[in-house]
Amino acid sequence: MYPKSFASDNHAGVHPTILEAMAAANHGDAPAYGDDSWTSAFEEKIKETFGPAAEGFAVLNGAGANMVGLALMLGRYDAIICADSAHIATHEAGASERLLGVKLMTVPTEDGKLRPSDIKSRLGGIGNPHEPQPAVVSISQTTELGTTYSPAEIAALAETAHKSGLRLHVDGARLANAAAYLECDLRAITTDAGVDVFSFGGTKNGALAAEAVVVLDPSLANAVPFLRRQSLQLASKMRFISAQLTALLTDDLWRRNAAHANAMATRLANGLADIPGISLAYPVHSNAVFATLPHVAAETLRQRYLFHYWDEPAGTVRWMTAFDTTPEQVDDFLEDIHKAAAM
Amino acid sequence: MYPKSFASDNHAGVHPTILEAMAAANHGDAPAYGDDSWTSAFEEKIKETFGPAAEGFAVLNGAGANMVGLALMLGRYDAIICADSAHIATHEAGASERLLGVKLMTVPTEDGKLRPSDIKSRLGGIGNPHEPQPAVVSISQTTELGTTYSPAEIAALAETAHKSGLRLHVDGARLANAAAYLECDLRAITTDAGVDVFSFGGTKNGALAAEAVVVLDPSLANAVPFLRRQSLQLASKMRFISAQLTALLTDDLWRRNAAHANAMATRLANGLADIPGISLAYPVHSNAVFATLPHVAAETLRQRYLFHYWDEPAGTVRWMTAFDTTPEQVDDFLEDIHKAAAM
Amino acid sequence: MYPKSFASDNHAGVHPTILEAMAAANHGDAPAYGDDSWTSAFEEKIKETFGPAAEGFAVLNGAGANMVGLALMLGRYDAIICADSAHIATHEAGASERLLGVKLMTVPTEDGKLRPSDIKSRLGGIGNPHEPQPAVVSISQTTELGTTYSPAEIAALAETAHKSGLRLHVDGARLANAAAYLECDLRAITTDAGVDVFSFGGTKNGALAAEAVVVLDPSLANAVPFLRRQSLQLASKMRFISAQLTALLTDDLWRRNAAHANAMATRLANGLADIPGISLAYPVHSNAVFATLPHVAAETLRQRYLFHYWDEPAGTVRWMTAFDTTPEQVDDFLEDIHKAAAM
Amino acid sequence: MYPKSFASDNHAGVHPTILEAMAAANHGDAPAYGDDSWTSAFEEKIKETFGPAAEGFAVLNGAGANMVGLALMLGRYDAIICADSAHIATHEAGASERLLGVKLMTVPTEDGKLRPSDIKSRLGGIGNPHEPQPAVVSISQTTELGTTYSPAEIAALAETAHKSGLRLHVDGARLANAAAYLECDLRAITTDAGVDVFSFGGTKNGALAAEAVVVLDPSLANAVPFLRRQSLQLASKMRFISAQLTALLTDDLWRRNAAHANAMATRLANGLADIPGISLAYPVHSNAVFATLPHVAAETLRQRYLFHYWDEPAGTVRWMTAFDTTPEQVDDFLEDIHKAAAM
Repeated sequence: MYPKSFASDNHAGVHPTILEAMAAANHGDAPAYGDDSWTSAFEEKIKETFGPAAEGFAVLNGAGANMVGLALMLGRYDAIICADSAHIATHEAGASERLLGVKLMTVPTEDGKLRPSDIKSRLGGIGNPHEPQPAVVSISQTTELGTTYSPAEIAALAETAHKSGLRLHVDGARLANAAAYLECDLRAITTDAGVDVFSFGGTKNGALAAEAVVVLDPSLANAVPFLRRQSLQLASKMRFISAQLTALLTDDLWRRNAAHANAMATRLANGLADIPGISLAYPVHSNAVFATLPHVAAETLRQRYLFHYWDEPAGTVRWMTAFDTTPEQVDDFLEDIHKAAAM
Repeated sequence: MYPKSFASDNHAGVHPTILEAMAAANHGDAPAYGDDSWTSAFEEKIKETFGPAAEGFAVLNGAGANMVGLALMLGRYDAIICADSAHIATHEAGASERLLGVKLMTVPTEDGKLRPSDIKSRLGGIGNPHEPQPAVVSISQTTELGTTYSPAEIAALAETAHKSGLRLHVDGARLANAAAYLECDLRAITTDAGVDVFSFGGTKNGALAAEAVVVLDPSLANAVPFLRRQSLQLASKMRFISAQLTALLTDDLWRRNAAHANAMATRLANGLADIPGISLAYPVHSNAVFATLPHVAAETLRQRYLFHYWDEPAGTVRWMTAFDTTPEQVDDFLEDIHKAAAM
Repeated sequence: MYPKSFASDNHAGVHPTILEAMAAANHGDAPAYGDDSWTSAFEEKIKETFGPAAEGFAVLNGAGANMVGLALMLGRYDAIICADSAHIATHEAGASERLLGVKLMTVPTEDGKLRPSDIKSRLGGIGNPHEPQPAVVSISQTTELGTTYSPAEIAALAETAHKSGLRLHVDGARLANAAAYLECDLRAITTDAGVDVFSFGGTKNGALAAEAVVVLDPSLANAVPFLRRQSLQLASKMRFISAQLTALLTDDLWRRNAAHANAMATRLANGLADIPGISLAYPVHSNAVFATLPHVAAETLRQRYLFHYWDEPAGTVRWMTAFDTTPEQVDDFLEDIHKAAAM
Repeated sequence: MYPKSFASDNHAGVHPTILEAMAAANHGDAPAYGDDSWTSAFEEKIKETFGPAAEGFAVLNGAGANMVGLALMLGRYDAIICADSAHIATHEAGASERLLGVKLMTVPTEDGKLRPSDIKSRLGGIGNPHEPQPAVVSISQTTELGTTYSPAEIAALAETAHKSGLRLHVDGARLANAAAYLECDLRAITTDAGVDVFSFGGTKNGALAAEAVVVLDPSLANAVPFLRRQSLQLASKMRFISAQLTALLTDDLWRRNAAHANAMATRLANGLADIPGISLAYPVHSNAVFATLPHVAAETLRQRYLFHYWDEPAGTVRWMTAFDTTPEQVDDFLEDIHKAAAM
């Protein structure tokens, strides 16, 4: 057994309802590669959730969802505008450059969020054959810094992008956490905000391994099966992937899991307010708490808990909660932080 | 519920022992991306099975295992020699060309098996900058036609490849079926035969979604973590992938599953011998039966069973058995084939 | 000084008119990258030659012309249908696979020429996400075996391709030789035959280094400047490339050069008819003569002339003539062949 | 005829000596693709100039030289550290990302020059499979801002790179201008400074189209012929490319051309010192003058001269001189600048 982890929501296990759904799918033969009834049910859930034009495609992980979704909108000499903290820019091992072959035109941000002016700042080379041509704006919801875009902020980005002929993509590995924080439905920050293609993450929200690529522009959807297969993101025994996503989208399990994780992060952040010498690096909009504390305190805590530095020289750490984090675990952690900070 | 499928071993579900192993891994937090004890156990099982130099890396599907394994051995202008029926050449959606950027120098074969002379026939351009440079020979064990290489045949290919500075790769999506057929251990057709890198398939042999890339040349292993991540084949909640592979490698579950599937195919093939108008297209060395039958018979059967044509104009179909195919299902199928053939 | 070469038309130098045109362009400053009057003149010549919809783009070499032209018509999971002897398949160092990331679906041919039935034979996987999707048919005019498609043959290929939603590309490194052989204008085997994109080669026909990508479907042309730049095929001092192509397209220099080279090949082939023990491997439609002769004769000749084996085990060699090959050189060569064959 | 251009050194024509060398190569047949005596002579000149370990390979343009040189040192998951103003990052149409498939880890700089601390700032992810792995440091000499690295500065970068297992690459499109400015030989800023691979530019220094990739680490050189061919950078009539480079490397033509261009830039910069309202944006180390002036003045001048804005909002323009710029042209230009600035 490992110590309690605040390192990542993917250190958590699988929600029991999801594991049960997988076990329930384990009866008899079923067609492979998605020609099965569990996958049809998932596709129907996507339409229920995101609107009748939405087409959902189950894939195996978040980087895969990003690569498949982005590939739909990118030609050979195109580029992606994104925050310099974007997951696709920092933590996907250069997959965008190698699998898509495109440049990331990164923009520095204060809080992980792009603004319309950031998009405009990267459009100067359009039409110049010597420069990569921006074709997609990609944002993360929530961002890698745990912050969240409001529906209006996303709509403004979509409008700015579309006006210049670009598409808007959302890396929604934690889309559920954003909707839970915003107390809106998932459609408000995707379909209704003008997003073209996005991912809907399951794995960080209680699934075992399941993400969805959702395409809102019907003209783009036909290419997905080919790109998914070629990008190594097609499961043969697809029913077990689809069953996870359907379970998440049933009875608002996605929201319950995410809201709980968010509440645990808020509980943690609130508790930190009382502890001298510790400050929040970013506002807490989801299940991530970025805190700056003395190195000696961080090191002491790392002997009893799993978590990572975000910016080691600055003493900033990232603490994440998950669907199964308990209030007691948070309170125990706070108590230990208190002690460590007092050392 | 779907009708009984003889279409593919990936139409089967998950072996109960494997599903139990996954459920058992669902306790508390664990480090992500493979830094967990389930993954250590898997890595140890790989060394037990394939020898102390073998390094195993869990991935998500067979095409992923091939792309990661092959990428280890291929530079920018290299090429792969393989059978023209190879899965990488025919059914991986051009992933070799796009993700690896290499040419497949395909060789026609009678039975899906490469011979040393086939390798030699493709070496003429070595050193010529206008031609792709063959660097890897890739074979499938079992082949896409259900045939199997003997240990000596693999050793001869390895020797031929190595003499010319090429590496030998094995697509082992059904490696277990081959070892079960040959009544040898897995090492005899990999480590002991001079293979450099291979995949060991779990999904077609009772797993949910789990394959291993196994590297036998230690100089190549360091690159795997980077290539696996970049190739979208790294699971965050890795413990659930590793647990599947460990379960397969424990108490010879891999062999029991594969031997059973093979026996069911043999039972089917033997039964066909009595049916007029039906002939085998290839010898049955594993869990695949390629049969040629009148179209009307095939179409009649397809109303009650799931299976695909292999070569529709020729009337050749592929019937596959799985770990969970029962003798009764085979006998019922044979009875229906009898009737269909008599029509 | 080297011995007389019958190895390739690119062993020849530069036609004096073309070198003069380059020298004439060397006056004062001019905008780079094609924004110059020499390039405008070239673009105008392309429209004159191939029709008002034709857009020409100058590039640096034949493989570059192929890669830029093909890239216009290929998405990420597409494939090219071509003869297995096609230059893109055999002698461009795997550029199609690495730079375009696509599979070449090669078809064996008797004479280097594709037929409509060859196209149809490769369409079976359309719509199947596991298989590469053929999107372009690429032929070479003349073929690598020196044979030539008639206008009607090209039109039939275009019709077959278009009916299935594919495009037709022509590798026209020796397009001039084909038109000279067919005694037609260049438009008859391109624009009028339904070709979508083709290259028009200069280098093998008396230029120093100059090829054109010509786009006949206006919807494709906008992408060329970006793809040409990214594919390393944009010359900064473009006026010197454009001037070569304009010179070739002026006063039918292209036809005079090609017709002369063809005539020299015919003279050579006719002379061979009298020599016992030597036979033609393919009909002579252009400036290439494929002859089969005893190895001892070939080796004797290679002491005094430059040329290559095409198929060394079979004793087949390729002899090529160029714009500057003289009748005397052919006759001397024939005399030496006579002697060598008599040995 | 175009107006006098101060837009780029590639708006100039070809130096007469170089054009004569090309014409002189136009005699009789010669082997293609570099197997000719002009290419041997070039290769010998490279060894004379850069030392016996240096291997030179002629290519067609600067982006091509960069892509071939960089590809030698980069695996599939590697990355390049470079200035954010680097040509490979800004003006090669995303070729690094698409042709090499690698990420550029860009660093902001004051003057276009990287420092050892910039390299160190990008090494934090080494060994982390989620992050691209820096494998090459690429600098431009001279930089895109016209500044120049001293031999000691390059040696310090090489040492820093090598200590961490990275290689040092130099984009030497204007290497000649740097050596002329530094009054050192070419070896001092390449071989002697610890550079691994660099390009030596001819086109901007009086050639028609000719660049060299020079490899100083013999273990890397074997791959060049294959990568050059695959990267579309191999000229068939190579003698005409090699002859240009040999001419430049003979009797110090490279230095005479570059020193003259530099002197004209200095003359221009010195003249600007007397003109109120105009300032230099960067020190003048080569043949580039970056000046900031009122927009109305710039626009007035653009009616009579060719040049580009570098940073239009800031009013910064780039004025470049070439081997054939005359003192009179500079003085006339200064006079016109005077008038425009006074408006």
